Parts: sequence; C-alpha cells; structure tokens
Amino acid sequence: MSKLTDVPKRILIGRALRSDRLGETLLPKRIALPVFASDPLSSVAYAPGEVLLVLSIAGASAYTFSPWIAAAVVILMFTVVASYRQNVHAYPSGGGDYEVANTNLGPKAGLTVASALLVDYVLTVAVSISSGVENLGSAVHFVIEHKVLCAIGIIVLLTLMNLRGVKESGKLFAIPTYVFVTGVFAMIAWGAFKGVVLDRTMQAPTADFTIRPEHEGIAGFALVFLLLRAFSSGCAALTGVEAISNGVPAFRKPKSRNAATTLLLMGALAVTMFCGIIGLAMATHVKMAEKPAHDLLHDGVPVGPDYVQDPVISQVAAAVFGDGTFFFVVLAAATALVLFLAANTAYNGFPLLGSILAQDRYLPRQLHTRGDRLAFSNGIVLLAGAAILLVWIYDADSTKLIQLYIVGVFVSFTLSQTGMVRHWNRLLRTQHDPARRRHMIRSRAINAFGAFFTGLVLIVVLVTKFTHGAWVALLGMAIFFVTMTAIRKHYDRVARELAAPEGPSDDSIRPARVHSIVLVSKIHRPTLRAVAYAKLMRSDKLEALSINVDPAETKALTEEWERRGINVPLKVLDSPYREITRPVVDYVKSLRRESPRDVVSVIIPEYVVGRWYEHLLHNQSALRLKGRLLFTPGVMVTSVPYQLRSSEVAKERAKKHQDWNAPGSVRRGLVETGPKRPSGRGEPNGKE
Amino acid sequence: MSKLTDVPKRILIGRALRSDRLGETLLPKRIALPVFASDPLSSVAYAPGEVLLVLSIAGASAYTFSPWIAAAVVILMFTVVASYRQNVHAYPSGGGDYEVANTNLGPKAGLTVASALLVDYVLTVAVSISSGVENLGSAVHFVIEHKVLCAIGIIVLLTLMNLRGVKESGKLFAIPTYVFVTGVFAMIAWGAFKGVVLDRTMQAPTADFTIRPEHEGIAGFALVFLLLRAFSSGCAALTGVEAISNGVPAFRKPKSRNAATTLLLMGALAVTMFCGIIGLAMATHVKMAEKPAHDLLHDGVPVGPDYVQDPVISQVAAAVFGDGTFFFVVLAAATALVLFLAANTAYNGFPLLGSILAQDRYLPRQLHTRGDRLAFSNGIVLLAGAAILLVWIYDADSTKLIQLYIVGVFVSFTLSQTGMVRHWNRLLRTQHDPARRRHMIRSRAINAFGAFFTGLVLIVVLVTKFTHGAWVALLGMAIFFVTMTAIRKHYDRVARELAAPEGPSDDSIRPARVHSIVLVSKIHRPTLRAVAYAKLMRSDKLEALSINVDPAETKALTEEWERRGINVPLKVLDSPYREITRPVVDYVKSLRRESPRDVVSVIIPEYVVGRWYEHLLHNQSALRLKGRLLFTPGVMVTSVPYQLRSSEVAKERAKKHQDWNAPGSVRRGLVETGPKRPSGRGEPNGKE
Repeated sequence: MSKLTDVPKRILIGRALRSDRLGETLLPKRIALPVFASDPLSSVAYAPGEVLLVLSIAGASAYTFSPWIAAAVVILMFTVVASYRQNVHAYPSGGGDYEVANTNLGPKAGLTVASALLVDYVLTVAVSISSGVENLGSAVHFVIEHKVLCAIGIIVLLTLMNLRGVKESGKLFAIPTYVFVTGVFAMIAWGAFKGVVLDRTMQAPTADFTIRPEHEGIAGFALVFLLLRAFSSGCAALTGVEAISNGVPAFRKPKSRNAATTLLLMGALAVTMFCGIIGLAMATHVKMAEKPAHDLLHDGVPVGPDYVQDPVISQVAAAVFGDGTFFFVVLAAATALVLFLAANTAYNGFPLLGSILAQDRYLPRQLHTRGDRLAFSNGIVLLAGAAILLVWIYDADSTKLIQLYIVGVFVSFTLSQTGMVRHWNRLLRTQHDPARRRHMIRSRAINAFGAFFTGLVLIVVLVTKFTHGAWVALLGMAIFFVTMTAIRKHYDRVARELAAPEGPSDDSIRPARVHSIVLVSKIHRPTLRAVAYAKLMRSDKLEALSINVDPAETKALTEEWERRGINVPLKVLDSPYREITRPVVDYVKSLRRESPRDVVSVIIPEYVVGRWYEHLLHNQSALRLKGRLLFTPGVMVTSVPYQLRSSEVAKERAKKHQDWNAPGSVRRGLVETGPKRPSGRGEPNGKE
Repeated sequence: MSKLTDVPKRILIGRALRSDRLGETLLPKRIALPVFASDPLSSVAYAPGEVLLVLSIAGASAYTFSPWIAAAVVILMFTVVASYRQNVHAYPSGGGDYEVANTNLGPKAGLTVASALLVDYVLTVAVSISSGVENLGSAVHFVIEHKVLCAIGIIVLLTLMNLRGVKESGKLFAIPTYVFVTGVFAMIAWGAFKGVVLDRTMQAPTADFTIRPEHEGIAGFALVFLLLRAFSSGCAALTGVEAISNGVPAFRKPKSRNAATTLLLMGALAVTMFCGIIGLAMATHVKMAEKPAHDLLHDGVPVGPDYVQDPVISQVAAAVFGDGTFFFVVLAAATALVLFLAANTAYNGFPLLGSILAQDRYLPRQLHTRGDRLAFSNGIVLLAGAAILLVWIYDADSTKLIQLYIVGVFVSFTLSQTGMVRHWNRLLRTQHDPARRRHMIRSRAINAFGAFFTGLVLIVVLVTKFTHGAWVALLGMAIFFVTMTAIRKHYDRVARELAAPEGPSDDSIRPARVHSIVLVSKIHRPTLRAVAYAKLMRSDKLEALSINVDPAETKALTEEWERRGINVPLKVLDSPYREITRPVVDYVKSLRRESPRDVVSVIIPEYVVGRWYEHLLHNQSALRLKGRLLFTPGVMVTSVPYQLRSSEVAKERAKKHQDWNAPGSVRRGLVETGPKRPSGRGEPNGKE
C-alpha cells in the first residue's frame, strides 16, 4: 500500500496511528510544556513592549511605573495558573473553558466562551505572526521592509502545511521553545551579571532617545486610566494559559497532576521572563513610543517615518549581547520561530474546538469526525482567511492587533472560573467527607478569586481598549455567536421534523409496490449492467425509459433494443424543450398520482471516471437528474456505476486522503468520551 | 405557476417558447439585418481609422493612397458577400463555416475553423467594447479618462445580462442599428452637400495638425508592405460577415433567398459607409497617428501624452455637424450602442457554436443541450473572462486589439470557401442536368475566387501583422484546437470502453443475487422509510448496517432497534479511525470477495433540505460515501430521500431555472436536425 512517494512523508511524520494505539504517543512533561506553552511563553516577546508603549504616552518618566505593572501581571498570572490547576483536576477529560462554562453556566455561557475562543485563535495567528515578523525584522531588514507581505506569506505557508496534514509533533515544538527560553534566561543572567557584578553600563539602541509625551503631566484619574491601559496590554502575556487545561488527555499518567505541574512551570517561566525583560529594558534605557516617527526624539529631533521601532526583546538583546552578534541573531530567530509555532497552535486548536462544537451541533456535523480532511480544511482556510484579513487591515502591526486580542481571553477566563465556582458548589451539596469538603472549599476559593480578578481585568480591558479595537473582537464574537445559534436552531428543527413516531411504524411510510424505471440513453455496458441489476431486484414492475431529444438517435436506440432482445419494455418520452430532467420527473410524478402508495425506483446507469477534468465531461445530466429526483416524494434513486479504467486514479487518491493526519492529534491526546476499546461488538438482532 | 416576480420578466422578454412553436419567431429581413449585421456594420466605426493610422507611418502624404485601399476593401467585401451567398444557398441549415469546412475538408479543417471562430468571438467582444468606449468617450470625457475600467464594466454588465438569460430580441437590435446607419448616411449626405453644393470647407478637429512620419520617404518594397498593412487593417470591416450564413434557419421563407438578399444589403451598406467615412476624412483633413503623443504635431510641437485621439467617425461628425452638437452626440451614442450590440452578438454566437461542437464531442457534452443554464453560463463566463483579460492587457486600445482580430476571420473565410469549392466538385460529379451544372460551375468559380482572394488576404494579414499581435490570436487558436482534440479523444476512448459487446448479454455482467444493506446512523423517519422501501425490493438478503463511532450512541441505537421490533438484522461495524466511509467500503468489498457474483445494494437514507447553506449542514458523509462506493465494482447505490419542509424552496428554484431562456435563441432559428414535431411516439416493446 505504501507507495514510493509516501516514504518521505512517513519519515517526516511517522506512521498513521489507529486510535486505540494513540496511548503510545502520550506526552511526557518535558514535551508537553513546549507543545502547550509556546503560545503563552512566546507572548513575552511582545507583552513587555506593549506596557512601555502605553506608558510612553505620559513620557519616559512614566516608565518608573513599569515594575508595578509587571507585579500586577505576575499576581494575575499566578491567580490564573492557580485557578486553572483546579480546572485540570476537576476536568481531566480536557474539556477546557467551553466545557466548563457549558456544563456549569448553561449553553449560552458555553457558546459565549466558544465564540471568544474562536476569535482568540484568529488573533493568536495574527498577533504571533506579526510579532514574529517584527522580531525577525530586527535581524533581517528585508523582512521589516515587506512586513505585511512576509506576514501573509508565513500565514499562507502555515496554512498549506496544515492543509497537507502536517502532524503536530512534540519534538518540533520542543527545540525552538527550549532554545528561546534558554536564550532569554541567558540574556537575563548575562545582563544581570554584566550590570551588577561587572558594573558595566549597557545601552539599548534607543537609550539616547527622548520621548515627547503625548499628554504632559498626567495625574489623577487620567494617570490611573493610563496605568490600567498599560496593565491591560501587559495581560497579553496571559494568552494561551488555558491551552493546558484543554490538553490534559495528552499527558502521561497521572494526567491531572502532570498537567498541573506543567501549568505551574509554565507560569513560573513566563513571569520570570516577563519581569526579566522589563527589568533589562529599564536598566538599558529602552525607549518605546506609540507613534515613534513623531514622538521619539533623537537630539531633540523626531526620528521620522523611516525609523523602525524594534521590539523590546531585541533592543535588550542588542544591549546585552551586542547588535548583530551571534547570540543576538540566534535569539531573534528563536523568538520568531517560537512565535510562528504559537500561531501554529491555533491551527491545531481551531479545528479541535470546532469538532467539539460540532458534536454539540453548533457547527456543521461533518466537523465532528476526526480525520475528516475536508472539514478540517474548511476550518483551517477560515482561520487563515480571517487572520490574513486582520494582518492586512492592521498592517501586520502587533501593537494594533493586541488591542483586539485580550478581550476574548478574559471573557473565557472569567466565565470558566465562574463556572468552576458553580462546579464546586454543586459537588459540595453532595459531598460529606470533611477532608474532601475542605479541599473543595479551598479550590472554590481559588476559582472565586480567579473569577473575580479576571472579571475585573475584563472590565478594565473593555473600558481601556474598547475604542482602540476591542470592539472588533466583540463584533467577531457576536458573529460567531449568532451563526452558531442559528446552526443549532436549524439542527434542532430538523431533528424534530425527523423524529420517528412511536409504535412499530408509521402508516404514511408503509408503501405497497415498487415500480422500477431504468433510464437509458444509449445501449452500452453501463446500461446493460443497470438493466441486469434492475431485473435482479424483482420489483413489481420494471421498464426502461428513454428521453427523445434527437429523433434519429432515439430510432437507432429502439431498433437496437429490439434487435438485442432485451426483455424489458422500453418507454420513450418526448421532450419538447430538449430537456432530460423535466420529462423524467413529470413521468415519475404521474406514476405516483396514479397509484400514490407505490414507490418509484429510478435506476441510473453511470460510468465512473477518475480525474476531475474527466468528471466535467460526463454524467452532468445524470447528476442534475438525481438532484431533482431527490425532491420528489416516494422515489428511490439508484446509481449503478460502471468503473472505467481511469477510475483507478481516483481510488488511489481516495486511499491517500484517508491516510491524512488531522491537525491537533498530539494535543488532543487519547481519551475519547465513552468506554475504552469499543471493539468486538456483537450484532443484537442476530448475525448471519 | 407564474409568480408575481416573473411578471416584469415576462413583459420584457415574452413567454418562454416550446421548441415546436419557435416558428412564430422567424425574422423578417428588416429585423434580420440588424440582428446579424450589427457586427460588420459597426466595424465601419473603427476600420477607416485603422487604415489612416497605418498610412500615417509614411506621413500625411500617404493618405492619398487611402481611396485605393478603400477600393481594395470594397472588392474584397463584394467577393466575400458573393461567396457567402453561395454558402447560404448550399447550406440552408445554417451550419456556417464550421460545418462547411468539417463536411468538405475533414474534421481537422473543421476544428481549425472552430478554433478561429472561438478566438474571433472573444476578440469581437474586446474590440467592439474598446471601440465603443472610445466613441462614447468622444462625447463623454469621463469615459475616456477611465477607459479600461469602463470597458471592463460594460463587459461585466453584458455578461450579467446574458447570464440572467436576456433573450436576444430582434427589436433591441433594430433601433440602434438603424439609428446608426441613418446617422452615418445623413452625415455622408450632409457632408457631401455642404462640401460640393455649398462649397463650404469643413475642418476636422485635427485638420491643422501635421504628422511627423516615422519613416521618411518610404518607397519600393517598404511602401508596398505598408500599403498591404493598411489594407489588412481595413479588412476589419469584414468581420462578422459570415454571421448571416450561420443564421439562415432564423429567416422567414424563402429562407435562403431572404438570407442572400440580406447579405447583399449588408455588404452594400457596409462598403458605402466605409467609403463615405474615408472620403469625408480626406475632405475634412483628419489626421491620425499611431503614436499621437509623439508623431502628431500642432504648430510643429508634439501634442504630448495628454492628447486623446478621437475615432475618425467622431472627428468627421465633428467636422460635418459641429463638435458637441445634438447630431454629433446622437451619432456618438448610436455608434457606441451598435458596437456594444456587436459585442453582445458574441455572447449569442459563442454558446451556439459551443453546442454544435459539443454535438460533435469536441466540447463537454452538456453544452449540447439547449437551455442548459449551467452549460451556457460556463461558456459566457469563459468568453467574458478572456475578453476582459485582453482588454486589460491591451489597455482597451482598439488599434492594438485589431492586430489580433483579423487572422481568425480570414482563417475561417479561406477554409470555408475552399470547402465550398469541394462541395461543388462533389455535387458536379453526380449532377447531369446542364442548367444546374452551369449554375454550380458558376457558384464554384465564385467560391474559388473567394477562397483565393481571402487566402491571399490571410497571408497578407499574417505577414504584416504577425509581430504586431497576430501571433496571440494564433496561440489562442492553437490552445482551443489542442483542448478540443483532447476532449474528442477522451470521448472516443470512453465510447470504445463502454461499447456493448454483441450477443444477448455479456457473462461478466450477469449477476446472481442481491445483498442489500441499509445504512443506519439514527432511528428517524428517513431511516424507517429506507428500511420500508428496502423490504419492498425483495432482495436475497437484507440487513441494516451501523458504524460504531461513538459507543454510547451505538448502544442507544441497538436498544431502540430491538425495542421497536424492526425485523431487519442490524449489524454494527467498529471504526477504529472514527471514519464512516472506509468500514462500509471494506465491508462491501468483503461481501463481494465471499460471493463474487453477488451484487451489493447499499441503501442510504437521506433527508433533503432546500437552501444551499442547509446543504452544508447535512448529508456530507452520505455524499462522500456515495462517491466512494461508485468506485467499488458490483455495487448499486440507492438514495432514499426524505423531503423536509424546507425542500420546497429548492423545488421552486429549480422550476424557475427551467424557464430560463438560452442566449442565441433568436439567431439560431427553428430547424433542429431531424424530422419536425417528434411527438406522440409509441413504445416499441409493448406498453403496460
């Protein structure tokens, strides 16, 4: 089965796995960390800069507030991590925020969280790619000069990779993530060593610049508002924290404990890196401005529109390692790579969430089947299209995109934590063991604080960012919400209409006899086969039917029919408009009118070709006829295929498609809901 | 049936017609002339200018050759008209050049003509629209400033009109064509009267300009080449002459005589207008240059890139009527309108030729059925796309586009006339009546001269225009030729593979028993109906089959199956990869392996919805499964549809589509090949 062309793929991504063998791919913590944490860890590449940017509105002097903001972000991070450790223990099936909110707060809350997460995935791609391009641009100038083009190019590349079915690989994530983390820690350590022990001054490239404050001497309420806005931006560091709670099934046993440990580790790494970078930025006098061309002054003169403001992490690296040095370039490359991997996580998360939503009938049902290539493809293309649109509208500017980013995250944080409080309340009602009750009450307290704090942050984010772009994210959420509600309504309506009535069977669907019709256009092998099959079916009445479009052809047909002695009567219908479909449909209807309890079985000979362009050349009228007949009551439509030699091509292609690996298989892990190993099931109604 | 929304359409385009009632719409000569001649008549709007443009290369003094070139075009026109009058009499079925070449010179020649005509239709659209925009631009300056945009806009408009199924209406063509012809004749008459009788001098807007010749003092071979090139350009006036020979069936009786008369009338009108405009251009000292910005001098200074060179017809109208006067604007508008109508004729001709080619299996068979909306739509979109591409590449510059135009026309002229010579030769072999023989010999002489002359012009065109763009047209022809040859080869191969062997029936297609399988995913009305229908079919074996994707759901299903006492055994297959398609296909294959002579009948319950977005939500796995099963030998695939309430919507839509009017219905006329009124046909093999 394995063809020569498959070998490179097999080498790259390994063999396709049966679902009952997925257990072998469970992730150890050292691999799970990079798989799930590339998104939150990579956000330290842009979050510190965003804090400084907002503060710069009040001038460089406001930078003195940055440690306080960093402290607030740290507290928030630990609150969220502590909260999600409770989720991980309570929902080891990896339901994630959607499941928690859906179960505990009802379907509307669940759907809100789902909408927020879908928007979030789009923004993860847009923000991570934009920031990655900016970081890469600090080392390679071509990239920054064609920023939008490069960003869109990388999105397209990721999309193609995922459409081809690149399997998410733990190792693929591990190396760049560890290089990045090691690099940042090395930078922090070396910077601290140089600064404190060697007492050398380190100068960021922008150290000599001054900032023209947009608002001179901000104080009172305005200052508080500004600080809150800076804090909101810093919260970008928290995006993606919830990923682990979705991925518990992918961990090795004990799953929940390992996931909780990984969560804590990730939180510790993220805050250390975040604070380290802010600290180094202060020490090396990095200057960032919202509108650098105008507000950033060099010797009192604005730097002008040609100035490119590099990310904080790259400016700090330039100060510590030296601009353009080996370590500088390695760190820039690792940063960019981790950011691209972070974007790739959305390509895995989006279809996964889609399949869960499809299971709950909020999205088309075919998204539910894992490994359904077409369905995943649609999701991936939708994700990529939306991300490209955002990147294009916002000029691949991570600062602008981040304004949209944080709303969705905190909507799901808040609702998920509120749901967890309800969860504990429910459990506490039936739990009487005091030790367990104490444990639950403690968990509830943590989640309650988490809900309160993240809710507060959500309000802060909404207030400070609404006009800066948060409304776009809310609009996106509303669109998803409305669409999914409509889809669910449709499915519910159809389900009601389809519901089988009780009792052995409904009288209206108990037919009397079958009248079979074989459609004939020419006498060739497919027709003969269809006639032979039709005879086998022993229906109550059998006739062949031909539509007279060209009298000469029809005459030849009837003569050959007689000559060959095919013992099935051939009926010829005239078609005054030279149509095929209408006369057949009208004839079927007339049969039904004559004997309404009869079923009409229309048998269509078809020949099957293999290539898409061959399809264009054949069977178009058969296809259209089948389409129309489906709308006619009391009809069965039977295709009798005749496989031409070229159909082998299509068979090969179909086989290949089946071996495709759906994105997200690693992070989804093993456990499907329901009992394990559902194999060897018998037939309840007797077996032949 | 007629809904309220249909009323405006019915008023505008009349009732849909049965094919045996088409006779009522046959065209009188006064309507047939504008319908078929809008293309050749409208070409006098650009052909005279093209002649002057080429001559200007040798300076304004070369304009003195223009009467000679006009004379050559007149002789050619009458040769072609005389030749085609023979075609019209010989082929009253309206076969046109393709049929003539195909019948008399063989399929390769026929296909060459067809390719040439297809390219020609594309260029008719591109040239006519570009020239129309230029003429409109002489009155409305906005149009000329956004020339490409306007040209593409009008193509899109025409395309949408034709896609909606605007019926070609004789009256629609009659009014603007007659206004245009009357206007041009009035201009010529008034100009002659003013010039000769009143002896007033008329000055074209460019009368004071001088031309800087690109080549000073051209003589000898170079001069001959230039004159031939100018003549080639003038031949643009002949495009579309063959249209009448395609449209003979649309004329009132006596068809051939009426068509021949109309042809003569058209030729006479065209040459009079052509010569009149050239004459007026000489009298009013019109100056045209190939590169006006550089070669057109005003007081010795080049007019520069902002100068817009108006078409000759509009400059002459400005001289005779006065620039911006009522008559000037009316003539400009009528000219533009006639040119747009000329473009529209391609929208009618392209799908018509397509349907003839499809009949000969050079194009996908579904193009053959008249009134097949989808097929015509594809042709129209292809035509429009190619024309837009040309307009865009060539900046909607009619002068550049004309370089491509004339090749195709003269390829089909030459081959058609050569074919006619063969036609007469063949007839003469069996004809012994001396009077008729004389007549045929005379016709043959005319066609032979036509073939010789148009062949000569073809060589001239190829030699003088090849590097100027004729190669593009040849390339287009080659692409059409190769594609159509490949399609024909494919159909021939399939036909050989499908051909039924002689003898009552082939053993390999005589099956033994039927094993029926009803696919069950849930117990709802569609499932119950499918089971009930399957039972009716009395196959040798019947079982229900369910794929276990979710064990909990499967358990519920088997329990309900038992509880309801459905007396068909239910088999459950496990799906380790959570797929639907593969287990079913594998199971069917295993059945076939066990008893290879059995036929497996797979019965799929489907529910039918009405709106396209509802389709996305349902039956996707059923569709894919059906697709896969078609590639499995020895299988019949039966859909048992269950119509949901919303399916009514789709039924209504399908009815509307059927009432659609295919483009080209007027010019195609009544006669289909084969006997008339093929109604009331009986059933040869007995009737039940």
